[in-house]
Amino acid sequence: MKCLIVLQIANGEERMKEKLTLIKVGGKIVEEPDTLYRLLDDFASIEGHKVLVHGGGRSATKIASQLGIESQMVNGRRITDADTLKVVTMVYGGLVNKNIVAGLQARGVNALGLTGADMNVIRSVKRPVKDVDYGFVGDVEKVDATLLSELIYKGVVPVMAPLTHDGQGNLLNTNADTIAGETAKALAALFDVTLVYCFEKKGVLRDENDDDSVIPQITRVEFEQYVADGTIQGGMIPKLQNAFEAIDAGVSEVIISLASAIKENEGTRIKK
Amino acid sequence: MKCLIVLQIANGEERMKEKLTLIKVGGKIVEEPDTLYRLLDDFASIEGHKVLVHGGGRSATKIASQLGIESQMVNGRRITDADTLKVVTMVYGGLVNKNIVAGLQARGVNALGLTGADMNVIRSVKRPVKDVDYGFVGDVEKVDATLLSELIYKGVVPVMAPLTHDGQGNLLNTNADTIAGETAKALAALFDVTLVYCFEKKGVLRDENDDDSVIPQITRVEFEQYVADGTIQGGMIPKLQNAFEAIDAGVSEVIISLASAIKENEGTRIKK
Repeated sequence: MKCLIVLQIANGEERMKEKLTLIKVGGKIVEEPDTLYRLLDDFASIEGHKVLVHGGGRSATKIASQLGIESQMVNGRRITDADTLKVVTMVYGGLVNKNIVAGLQARGVNALGLTGADMNVIRSVKRPVKDVDYGFVGDVEKVDATLLSELIYKGVVPVMAPLTHDGQGNLLNTNADTIAGETAKALAALFDVTLVYCFEKKGVLRDENDDDSVIPQITRVEFEQYVADGTIQGGMIPKLQNAFEAIDAGVSEVIISLASAIKENEGTRIKK
Repeated sequence: MKCLIVLQIANGEERMKEKLTLIKVGGKIVEEPDTLYRLLDDFASIEGHKVLVHGGGRSATKIASQLGIESQMVNGRRITDADTLKVVTMVYGGLVNKNIVAGLQARGVNALGLTGADMNVIRSVKRPVKDVDYGFVGDVEKVDATLLSELIYKGVVPVMAPLTHDGQGNLLNTNADTIAGETAKALAALFDVTLVYCFEKKGVLRDENDDDSVIPQITRVEFEQYVADGTIQGGMIPKLQNAFEAIDAGVSEVIISLASAIKENEGTRIKK
């Protein structure tokens, strides 16, 4: 079933909300040629407007290590000191981002690589030090999707690296899931947005040892039950919390799936 | 004296050609905080539309060396093997470019960092192997300034890294002077373009040992005389050849000056 959403524009014109797919892929997929090329092929074949948000943590760790910089992780998050910020700026904003852009251009996709500093798309604040000093890590404050939307309407496909800026000249390392969620929310004002979190499993699993135990759909009530009974735990909890926040903020649908299934829309669907 | 140039648009509308300043700065200026901040302040204060093109060779050499990759130069040009391409992608497209973008945003300039792959702005071909195999080095084939111009009209300031792409998924290392010249030419169809090559000297010198012996203006005829009598030699020759090509292709003015003089428009002016 196709569903048309009509948006009332301030000046009285009516404009149909056009479909937009925002895909977030983790580092592992974009850092190995085989999985990257498959992803680029699949992503290129998605119809309609689209945005790609990528990670790059494994490459950052590798380059940091080659430069003699130790990668320190707390709760799965990278501690970003000044040297590490340089590395992630090089790896996320340069190496990973620009290779994806060139790869998409070769597939006929008019990609534009961006950090949050570019066109002031994502402004953040340096995370306050509480129990842990995460260093140069940014919590998203504001997404300005005005110019981004105009470019998307013209056929440009933004490719977003997990970096933001504080408006005072500093780049900040920002979680790619957060970038994806916040950008999807901002674009939801103008587009009918499907947000897809690509994952190393087929979706949210009922049994983590059984790759085929995908839960096809999760509502917020079900999510709370799954967390209470221990079915959903660890890093999946913030991922799903982000997903529900996106839905509450106007994103039409959130899907958690394998990168290789982005064309088929398989995986776990997050519903209100 | 202000000069208005009127451009006849295909559909019969007339549009005044608006002024655009395109500044090319070398690696040395953007790689040291003091000179970078001064440049960003000066660049931010330039009125009207503007574009910044930057190098980054010194940082690339330094990072390459830290990664155990030897930088090999022939005739002042970097031999770009696969490992070096990774380094320049990280350094030019990431580290240098994104720090300039963040620095300009802090100064109220709506900067957008770009390589030639982004929005397919600059397509190149891998340089054919003749006497020297330069590796992954691209010679510019085509600049598409359509989307770039639209963004510039909306107040966006492109910041261009010296990287292009071949349309087949490969990034290519491309001389920043060439990027500046070719982009200036493409933008000259829509804007009244002044192209400024920032340099370590006050301009083209009559006597290389006398920093104050700046030649204020050079025509093509004078250039040929200066080359014949040895006044102009070495790396300045291709720089000036690029400048004359730009003038022939519609760029209004080319200036060769100190980065610290970009506001004053001092230096050597290249005239038809």
